[in-house]
Amino acid sequence: MAPSSDAVPGTSVTAGPDLAGVDLVTVLQALSDPVRLEMVRQLAHCPGTGELACGQLQLPVSKSTVSHHLRVLHDAGVIAYREEGTRKYAFLRREELDDRFPGLLPSVVRCCTGEPTTAEA
Amino acid sequence: MAPSSDAVPGTSVTAGPDLAGVDLVTVLQALSDPVRLEMVRQLAHCPGTGELACGQLQLPVSKSTVSHHLRVLHDAGVIAYREEGTRKYAFLRREELDDRFPGLLPSVVRCCTGEPTTAEA
Repeated sequence: MAPSSDAVPGTSVTAGPDLAGVDLVTVLQALSDPVRLEMVRQLAHCPGTGELACGQLQLPVSKSTVSHHLRVLHDAGVIAYREEGTRKYAFLRREELDDRFPGLLPSVVRCCTGEPTTAEA
Repeated sequence: MAPSSDAVPGTSVTAGPDLAGVDLVTVLQALSDPVRLEMVRQLAHCPGTGELACGQLQLPVSKSTVSHHLRVLHDAGVIAYREEGTRKYAFLRREELDDRFPGLLPSVVRCCTGEPTTAEA
């Protein structure tokens, strides 16, 4: 389940766009990049709450490049953020995405999980 | 089943790349365009043999733009061609894609089938 700001006092969730207004092309474009696909893979497989502090993502790119790619995923409705103090956690909008695009995210995660990491700067 | 050149004398199939060498990003990039998504949707839903003469695709773009987008789909391993005399038929490489990227094409087709056509020049 997606983390909720209701459950954790002192945190706020930046949910991103209403998925009803996001089309399939936008989501596919957001996913069709090796760095962003690797972000999605890591978020899909992170244990526990299903969220990762943005700095915990293991990627061979600069911090500003990470920020750019996170923004693309956020703007396409693939991820949302939870902010707690100065820390920002990212998580996949699994349930909402599955309502809007049934089966898409699970199939992409399954397909990229078996692949070698090709993320490059 | 994909049309086979063995079954129809006088035709040849242009199969495209070996999907073992095609990565997920390439396929997602090929699919993440409104015109190409509409091509995939029409090919997925065409009755009978599962193939359409390239000229039968109903798209609001020029013939040369259709050719360009068909080439992108072909080079990414999403479609193949069967040539019969001067006619060229396109079909989805459903089974091979499903072996390489399980569930991906069906979920994309399902997701774009419910959407309004947004293909533009």
